[in-house]
Amino acid sequence: MKTDALIEQPTLLLDADRARANIRRMAEKARRQGVRLRPHFKTHQSAEIGAWFREEGVDRITVSSVSMAEYFAAAGWQDITIAFPANLRERERIRRLSQSVRLGLLAESAETIQALDGALDGEAGLWLKVDVGTGRTGLPWDRPETFRPLLAEARRAKHLRLRGLLAHAGHTYHAAGPDEVVALYRQSVQRMQALRDALQPEADAELLLSAGDTPGCSLSPELGQVEEIRPGNFVFYDVQQMRAGACTVDQIAAAVACPVVALHPERREAVVYGGAVHLSKDTVRLGERTVFGLVAFPGEKGWELPVEGGCVTRVSQEHGIIELPAAAFERVRVGDLLCVLPAHICLVVSNLRRYLTLDGQWIEAMG
Amino acid sequence: MKTDALIEQPTLLLDADRARANIRRMAEKARRQGVRLRPHFKTHQSAEIGAWFREEGVDRITVSSVSMAEYFAAAGWQDITIAFPANLRERERIRRLSQSVRLGLLAESAETIQALDGALDGEAGLWLKVDVGTGRTGLPWDRPETFRPLLAEARRAKHLRLRGLLAHAGHTYHAAGPDEVVALYRQSVQRMQALRDALQPEADAELLLSAGDTPGCSLSPELGQVEEIRPGNFVFYDVQQMRAGACTVDQIAAAVACPVVALHPERREAVVYGGAVHLSKDTVRLGERTVFGLVAFPGEKGWELPVEGGCVTRVSQEHGIIELPAAAFERVRVGDLLCVLPAHICLVVSNLRRYLTLDGQWIEAMG
Repeated sequence: MKTDALIEQPTLLLDADRARANIRRMAEKARRQGVRLRPHFKTHQSAEIGAWFREEGVDRITVSSVSMAEYFAAAGWQDITIAFPANLRERERIRRLSQSVRLGLLAESAETIQALDGALDGEAGLWLKVDVGTGRTGLPWDRPETFRPLLAEARRAKHLRLRGLLAHAGHTYHAAGPDEVVALYRQSVQRMQALRDALQPEADAELLLSAGDTPGCSLSPELGQVEEIRPGNFVFYDVQQMRAGACTVDQIAAAVACPVVALHPERREAVVYGGAVHLSKDTVRLGERTVFGLVAFPGEKGWELPVEGGCVTRVSQEHGIIELPAAAFERVRVGDLLCVLPAHICLVVSNLRRYLTLDGQWIEAMG
Repeated sequence: MKTDALIEQPTLLLDADRARANIRRMAEKARRQGVRLRPHFKTHQSAEIGAWFREEGVDRITVSSVSMAEYFAAAGWQDITIAFPANLRERERIRRLSQSVRLGLLAESAETIQALDGALDGEAGLWLKVDVGTGRTGLPWDRPETFRPLLAEARRAKHLRLRGLLAHAGHTYHAAGPDEVVALYRQSVQRMQALRDALQPEADAELLLSAGDTPGCSLSPELGQVEEIRPGNFVFYDVQQMRAGACTVDQIAAAVACPVVALHPERREAVVYGGAVHLSKDTVRLGERTVFGLVAFPGEKGWELPVEGGCVTRVSQEHGIIELPAAAFERVRVGDLLCVLPAHICLVVSNLRRYLTLDGQWIEAMG
């Protein structure tokens, strides 16, 4: 591996060709179907990687925090939706942001709309958060009456312009397989449409629909009658996505190279420098096992296919415990690198905050 | 809460009085029993908090990475053990460190000892890592013969001076309660003693014993016949420690203040800005439930006692979902703060990297 000599600590390896191909594929799918792609940048959190999306014609993005919006605004993005219920404690920063970019904000209570409107002096877009069945947050899609106070407040607002309904069908992440993902995606779009039909008569302007998670947008042949999709994870994919059938193993574009620090032949375990502060404690269920990631050897370029039966079975703060089948175990020496394909890449990026591309370039994420 | 106006985002609140009392209590216990306290600084990762230990007479510390050793060396610490199997890929940085501080290194193979010795030009201490039953890493305490090649290599080494045997009885974290913690602590000390008895005849110098995790060192009345203890978590404690009986609720010195962004009265859930990237995905089992933390209201100073039945039941990247009993739920408004006592504080520090003390001072951790 070209980058081997550069790696001293757990390092997030990025296969830029794969990531660019992932971006291109999603951008083309959205374009073909006439749906706007507003990718979620919380996955990569990097201005440099963001620029790869611009090359595919993307000019609107999604983020999950005010800080992330500020970061990408500074990197030149002009149309940013913060897809997280507006945090009133950051309203002064939201106000400032709204003066420099076309900002989309999320609300799920009349109180929040009122408070936001009172804080703004320019203009911002307003999306009402819909729960299409995930049960995390948002108002329930099947109770349109709960949205009415929000619509009324939006009509009164001076600085907020109602854009539409926004949902994240996060329960597709836990689907048993591709068919269920597609079924859940379709269901979530239908639910949003039903809600729009119920609410449109009371809205001043056309209500747009913003939907789309990575499994659904990757697997559903049709993106459906929504105006925009907001997948994020697809830029890199990970083992959770692979398990759901949303990607193939050779579309996974990021892995963590971890130095081997100890070997336990009697239980065929390698201990790597790469623990919860690097890989996170997120897991994926594969058959009977719950693991923190799959394991691959470094390859000529990047990493090989994962070792069958190789996985990260435990993590503590800095330690990762990797189980390997006998033949693979024999190949490993202390001081080598093993590459971990993580269960969930978003948290890994958030932990490591920089990438090493396969040709040896460092790419920074936001601090 | 005095700090309320300062808090816009998920913020790690630090009750400095409690932390200092926790430090003092452990320092006094060690002093009374003639055992050296070499606290693990991976929990707080802050030069400023480190200085509080100095005031209690601590002059030797433990860290879990070379980066952390460099950080604390720059902060003036002169005697640092890196209690993680030496990562050969960082040997040049280890060499440089060993020139400026009294460095302790960990090995569990003859190959590592040889490679380290070849890389050093000054001198460093060497500890052999013992597995006293945790099953994470280290050589098994009951197979002294596996240590013999390491002892032989240590005798040949020019730059490494064998100090002794080091263990971390991490399985005390999963003990059912105080009695089991104490039993496991005693067992781990006995196992180290048995191993020392077996190996001492082959060692050039007296083999010291370094042991001690937070539950064991907090709960065991006697620290036992070891030369040093290395607990870390005790500086703040957390809900995992409280569950093990290692601390009381009012010894927990850190909590995460999270802005409330949505309320779901029908299921008595508050959604807070405070998710996996802040709280981590670490959990603690409390009775029938597995939770990410307990929940308290902000208090006159700091936070009140946790709300009975209040807990963080789910987290996604930025969202925390908090379940509250009816009376508590009624008190909460969007824009308020709720304080989360996290399952595991070490990962939270690693995520948030700075503290706000109850009198409004920001304290930085390493970057």
